[in-house]
Amino acid sequence: MARYDFASDNAAPAAPEAMQAMVAANSGFASGYGTDEVTARAADLLRELLDADAEVRFVGSGTAANAISLAALCKPFEAVLAHEHAHICTDETGAPGFFGQGLGLIPLPGASGRIEAAALGGALAQPDVSYRQSPAALSLTNATEYGAVYSVEDLATLAAAAKAKQLSIHLDGARLANAAAAGFDLKAIKGLGADILVVGGTKAGMPPTEAVVLFDRALARRFDARLKQAGQLPSKARYFAAPFIGMLEGGAFLRHAAHANAMARRLAEQMPFPIRHEVESNAVFVEMDEPTLARLHAGGWFAYRFLDGSVRFMCSWATTADAVDSLCEALVRIA
Amino acid sequence: MARYDFASDNAAPAAPEAMQAMVAANSGFASGYGTDEVTARAADLLRELLDADAEVRFVGSGTAANAISLAALCKPFEAVLAHEHAHICTDETGAPGFFGQGLGLIPLPGASGRIEAAALGGALAQPDVSYRQSPAALSLTNATEYGAVYSVEDLATLAAAAKAKQLSIHLDGARLANAAAAGFDLKAIKGLGADILVVGGTKAGMPPTEAVVLFDRALARRFDARLKQAGQLPSKARYFAAPFIGMLEGGAFLRHAAHANAMARRLAEQMPFPIRHEVESNAVFVEMDEPTLARLHAGGWFAYRFLDGSVRFMCSWATTADAVDSLCEALVRIA
Amino acid sequence: MARYDFASDNAAPAAPEAMQAMVAANSGFASGYGTDEVTARAADLLRELLDADAEVRFVGSGTAANAISLAALCKPFEAVLAHEHAHICTDETGAPGFFGQGLGLIPLPGASGRIEAAALGGALAQPDVSYRQSPAALSLTNATEYGAVYSVEDLATLAAAAKAKQLSIHLDGARLANAAAAGFDLKAIKGLGADILVVGGTKAGMPPTEAVVLFDRALARRFDARLKQAGQLPSKARYFAAPFIGMLEGGAFLRHAAHANAMARRLAEQMPFPIRHEVESNAVFVEMDEPTLARLHAGGWFAYRFLDGSVRFMCSWATTADAVDSLCEALVRIA
Amino acid sequence: MARYDFASDNAAPAAPEAMQAMVAANSGFASGYGTDEVTARAADLLRELLDADAEVRFVGSGTAANAISLAALCKPFEAVLAHEHAHICTDETGAPGFFGQGLGLIPLPGASGRIEAAALGGALAQPDVSYRQSPAALSLTNATEYGAVYSVEDLATLAAAAKAKQLSIHLDGARLANAAAAGFDLKAIKGLGADILVVGGTKAGMPPTEAVVLFDRALARRFDARLKQAGQLPSKARYFAAPFIGMLEGGAFLRHAAHANAMARRLAEQMPFPIRHEVESNAVFVEMDEPTLARLHAGGWFAYRFLDGSVRFMCSWATTADAVDSLCEALVRIA
Repeated sequence: MARYDFASDNAAPAAPEAMQAMVAANSGFASGYGTDEVTARAADLLRELLDADAEVRFVGSGTAANAISLAALCKPFEAVLAHEHAHICTDETGAPGFFGQGLGLIPLPGASGRIEAAALGGALAQPDVSYRQSPAALSLTNATEYGAVYSVEDLATLAAAAKAKQLSIHLDGARLANAAAAGFDLKAIKGLGADILVVGGTKAGMPPTEAVVLFDRALARRFDARLKQAGQLPSKARYFAAPFIGMLEGGAFLRHAAHANAMARRLAEQMPFPIRHEVESNAVFVEMDEPTLARLHAGGWFAYRFLDGSVRFMCSWATTADAVDSLCEALVRIA
Repeated sequence: MARYDFASDNAAPAAPEAMQAMVAANSGFASGYGTDEVTARAADLLRELLDADAEVRFVGSGTAANAISLAALCKPFEAVLAHEHAHICTDETGAPGFFGQGLGLIPLPGASGRIEAAALGGALAQPDVSYRQSPAALSLTNATEYGAVYSVEDLATLAAAAKAKQLSIHLDGARLANAAAAGFDLKAIKGLGADILVVGGTKAGMPPTEAVVLFDRALARRFDARLKQAGQLPSKARYFAAPFIGMLEGGAFLRHAAHANAMARRLAEQMPFPIRHEVESNAVFVEMDEPTLARLHAGGWFAYRFLDGSVRFMCSWATTADAVDSLCEALVRIA
Repeated sequence: MARYDFASDNAAPAAPEAMQAMVAANSGFASGYGTDEVTARAADLLRELLDADAEVRFVGSGTAANAISLAALCKPFEAVLAHEHAHICTDETGAPGFFGQGLGLIPLPGASGRIEAAALGGALAQPDVSYRQSPAALSLTNATEYGAVYSVEDLATLAAAAKAKQLSIHLDGARLANAAAAGFDLKAIKGLGADILVVGGTKAGMPPTEAVVLFDRALARRFDARLKQAGQLPSKARYFAAPFIGMLEGGAFLRHAAHANAMARRLAEQMPFPIRHEVESNAVFVEMDEPTLARLHAGGWFAYRFLDGSVRFMCSWATTADAVDSLCEALVRIA
Repeated sequence: MARYDFASDNAAPAAPEAMQAMVAANSGFASGYGTDEVTARAADLLRELLDADAEVRFVGSGTAANAISLAALCKPFEAVLAHEHAHICTDETGAPGFFGQGLGLIPLPGASGRIEAAALGGALAQPDVSYRQSPAALSLTNATEYGAVYSVEDLATLAAAAKAKQLSIHLDGARLANAAAAGFDLKAIKGLGADILVVGGTKAGMPPTEAVVLFDRALARRFDARLKQAGQLPSKARYFAAPFIGMLEGGAFLRHAAHANAMARRLAEQMPFPIRHEVESNAVFVEMDEPTLARLHAGGWFAYRFLDGSVRFMCSWATTADAVDSLCEALVRIA
């Protein structure tokens, strides 16, 4: 039987805390479109988590959350600066351009998914010309696609450079829980000048839900209409909000992420293949040739070859130590 | 305390069968983006329900389901023929134009939300000119916004007229369960020439989920890429598919809809205000002046004034006979 | 031989002043994309005409000029208030929605193409709800589609009501020359709070060209990139600017429009059919049944049945008194 | 005084044949939107030039012509394969994504602007996955951005590879005249399987106008509505068609292009800087460091540093031998 344990952190089921909160919310009639009490409570918990007086919305898709955010920050004839391997650049089927009516993406290099400051500087120094899409926003991802965790200082440096050129800041936090569990201070985000933050629910162990946090409250004007038009203002909003209550009220959000990170470290310690990126959160990337990967697949373990040519193993709240050990045994056999 | 029982059928919680199926699906790792077994099973059940060899996808929003469907059927310089009070025309913040890059909507009249055949004929007879958006699709809703239920024959007549002019057919089934419970034969849809059907999950008593049924399988080419770009290809797809399993396996889908319809009839029978539209499914529309509606609101009962000026009461799987009776007592008091 | 003299004011050739200026501009090399001296001169002349310190651009299409302007003023989930028979609503194949990514149009009634103040007030009083596209701009057309000419006071009243609700103002001046020749003070526009004005070149007697005037200079940021992306920043910009020089330097712009207006009055005076709208500029609308219109067409004269059911005759700079008299003879014969 | 002679081939004025035809067309009334006789005649001449039974439209912008063509060939969740330095990728402010609602561009490498067959093969071999925009069209440019001229055989090889994967073919012929003058057989295009060809008017010596040639006549369905919505169906269409008549009737189209090519060869022969790309049409690209380029600019000659780091000199129908010689003297002085 095929095992998807390490294929992606979204292959995991939802954590019990998330499901229990959803079941608990499933009672009685409620007003629609995010005006209910469950949604209000979840938004409060996110404001508390971030120590920020921000507007919060819950949507059903990370791709939509990111693309709608970027569309709110850029005009169609403008562009977003992002790491060349950022999810918005490589894995969302051009959603930013779709929601943003052709808005451009300007890819920037950098080790392990972190944007290199010099590359950002170079892009920001480009003259504004009419025949190119000039940047209006910088998108940063923490933890990165390669599991690296930006420090607050690193993000502050990048954000400040962008802000100095009047760019807006989008923070893709699909794996923000993992970054936080690795030491990234969530309460420091508000000081970075981020305009919009997407807090990942799905990869953190919830059923489909993501939180869109508007630090710049001016963006909230008619934002519900923006969401509704984009198919992301659910009538039964409580089902996207409730999982956050379950995960935030008792600390499961960070606790589960810490477990995922610990499983990645456990995997890295036993890994018989060369590790490509430092293991800072819940991902392990290794060098593995194609025949070896084929043998791994033949053995029933799914793992994907990633954009940089390495093979990726993701851990999640649901990854067990036994599964890590079994995988490692399989890896040792095919190494 | 405010009571939303009759505000909308989406004010209700999810039915136990839907939630139990979601909980049951919440186990083990699964491959992503709709390639899992839960999704496959739910799709099978829908094919069985419709007795049709169609492609099925599950998305998180009815607005997105409709708008993506219409974008698949029309080019931006074309238009959709729809009832002037259809949900796509009046309640989706222009989502068809957003997903369809400006595609137009041509509103048609007709009693109780049913499109008048003569009006459709007139629209289809318009010459194709370059300065107007000519129709490429006909959108039909069953049950209608006013709770009317088209017969198979009525739909066949409208669809045939559109098909004769090479238009595609979109069927908005947000309340298809209620139509079916009122006698509409779901297995007859495949014979109508419908290209895409949206089967409502939310209003039928599920957490956010809708099924997109592609009768025209040619539309399935790269449809997952279309969904992904539009933010509607969930990584954890099982949570949008599972509720359909719970509702379809044991017949709860139709049983709950029959209950909702029965509650509407019970409400209609006791209703002290003039009924505006014949009660054929789960809605009761009445004539009520503004001061009276204000008194109703003051009494804690929420109900909305609708597009035709009447006041709408919706019943759902969760509406109890007691609630109907209590509402009626309140209505009698303010009448 | 078919005669298009009265079919539309865009059936006329370009006026000699416009063509001569184009020929005069056709000399030597020039820098591209509107940075040339011909473009600078034409922009100066428009600023002088309007007595306004505005940014000016020249584009090749009125449809594009309007749609790009509206896209600059509204977000996709917002709408434009406009007369129900305004060109943007009825004759541009949904261009505002295409350039504006689904932005909505809210049609307003009013006699002879003028928006009724009460209807505007009603629309502005609607609550902002997430499921509808709320208005962000008011579009006004002078002269109107029916040849009516708003007074400065009338426009000021409508504009002020919109401005009070934070809406932007778009002025479609496809026939601004005719309005001006009828007494409308062009130097008063800047006082109306208009954000963008489109000054029609084509219908005023030029080859394809329209001027986009940005009274709100903040809109000029990256506006050239907006135009370039929309296919409206011509490399050889001088050919769109030169006709305005020819028409503005010696006053031909207004002189030709006055002639067109005079021809319409001459036509109205001899008209054997009931006139539907007061003749205030260069259009004559009459009541004529279908068999009669068919006889007119059979006699070689083209005229179109318009949105309100009347038949339209347009005069232009090129309309001769002889042509008017010949048409009237033909009309008398078929009346 | 600044000299733009070599800055771009669109810095030149219109050729006398083009202007005379425009003046000749400026007579009498004409029906609008491309239904006039001037447009019909110009379309006939293009069909003759290409020996093809194709639909032809005339628009005012090359950027729009390309972007509208690509939007007609691809859906938003698909992509266009193109040379990484193709005009659509680098100089059109993301117009393909704007007109194509986010359609993607997949850049391919290749010397001198020609797409490398192996790179195309690699791109075509990529699996179709839902999270990436898979290619639906191949865009080819002849002559290329670097003045290289594809042979018919080269284009046939690339086109056949794409066609084998069901891709459509777009041919950007902004400098098709120059390619033809260099020996490229225009009558061979129809055999390549191209679906849409854009024949450049502007760079060939006309005022703003481009011809869109639909070899696949099925694309013509509602194409005028597509153009109208995109602001590219001019009411006074004759002014975009007439220049093609002037340039095609007496052979000026090819004759002027041959002159431009000859001037580029003359420039190349005297060029004191290393030439970067073989001179096959009307462009000369040279290696020149920044201080030297600054000295050239200081001497009044405009030339641009291009995407590959070289400095570009463009010749046109209006380039004189004297100008070439003067430029060369200036170049020798600063070398």
